[in-house]
Amino acid sequence: MMEYPEAIQLLIEQFMRYPGVGRKTAERYALHTISAFEEKDYDAFQETLRRIKEEIKPCELCGHLTDQDRCDICKDSQRDQSKILVVEESKDVIVIEKTKTYTGVYHVLNGVISPSNGIGPDDIGIKPLLNRLKNEQHEEVILATNLSDEGETTALYIQRLLLKTDILVTRIAYGMPAGGNISYADEITLNKALEGRKKF
Amino acid sequence: MMEYPEAIQLLIEQFMRYPGVGRKTAERYALHTISAFEEKDYDAFQETLRRIKEEIKPCELCGHLTDQDRCDICKDSQRDQSKILVVEESKDVIVIEKTKTYTGVYHVLNGVISPSNGIGPDDIGIKPLLNRLKNEQHEEVILATNLSDEGETTALYIQRLLLKTDILVTRIAYGMPAGGNISYADEITLNKALEGRKKF
Repeated sequence: MMEYPEAIQLLIEQFMRYPGVGRKTAERYALHTISAFEEKDYDAFQETLRRIKEEIKPCELCGHLTDQDRCDICKDSQRDQSKILVVEESKDVIVIEKTKTYTGVYHVLNGVISPSNGIGPDDIGIKPLLNRLKNEQHEEVILATNLSDEGETTALYIQRLLLKTDILVTRIAYGMPAGGNISYADEITLNKALEGRKKF
Repeated sequence: MMEYPEAIQLLIEQFMRYPGVGRKTAERYALHTISAFEEKDYDAFQETLRRIKEEIKPCELCGHLTDQDRCDICKDSQRDQSKILVVEESKDVIVIEKTKTYTGVYHVLNGVISPSNGIGPDDIGIKPLLNRLKNEQHEEVILATNLSDEGETTALYIQRLLLKTDILVTRIAYGMPAGGNISYADEITLNKALEGRKKF
């Protein structure tokens, strides 16, 4: 049977490593590369991958992805050190920063506890978080992991670890999103919205 | 405002060049790269891009992507030279080859006529097709461009160019696909299915 040349097969396999990318999509990406890329585009893509490999690492303090030893947020002396907001991924930091309302610092777990995927508490940034809480002065830990089984488990795990400390542990509010239509909302969101109801 | 480090921004932009990939998806791909790739994975991806850049080109005869001067199909003396099947993309050749029923040769246009995108007949492999029809012995040209405005325009354009020759020009059948539900079919498909009806 006719197959793609080896290099194209390899490129398809590279793209198939990405979340949500099946063979058809990977094929489309690979053929798009060949039809749209000129020599300089290949060079730029290779150079970008080389830079990512060499430059990007988690911030030694908070785990946020950075090209320095410490990320810009950790280096910013203006940030409110009393609050530490715990998120799953670097992406979450970027999104929260866009709101321009949070002035505290962050801690990026780079993962969630997920026993079915073999990911335990020691595989994500929980120990570094505990070390920070021991060594730095923080008054509040805001848990902003996602409203998924894994996110909830991780939040609960951290909350229990901090039970006997003086640190205030909070969880961000979950409920109906802006523009959300109640008739299309899922059960978990609706439950959270009802549980979290306030006097009007 | 907090942004990603430059190298991550660049990787996000690389992924945004792909069809159907917006900023959110590109961000997901970039962060997946960082979390899932080890050093050897970066090297492999870079090496694959280098190989694509250096090895892959259209077959000098039929336009199908290959890592040789001529593709395996053109080099195969067992193929039926009387039929030449015209497709938009290399991907189409691979798909048709999987059916294992077509034994003729191919011609890959590497594009379609699309005035709105500034792509005219000279920008795709129509001239190489005419040259082949002049220089080689083919009895039938099977037009297998897609059932889209551009695919139809391209098929019509080639058909007209060949009006005064002895070559039989055919178009593959369009109609209801296997497993297709008539109540969900689009108008164009249904029209084609009705037009192409046969005595039962």
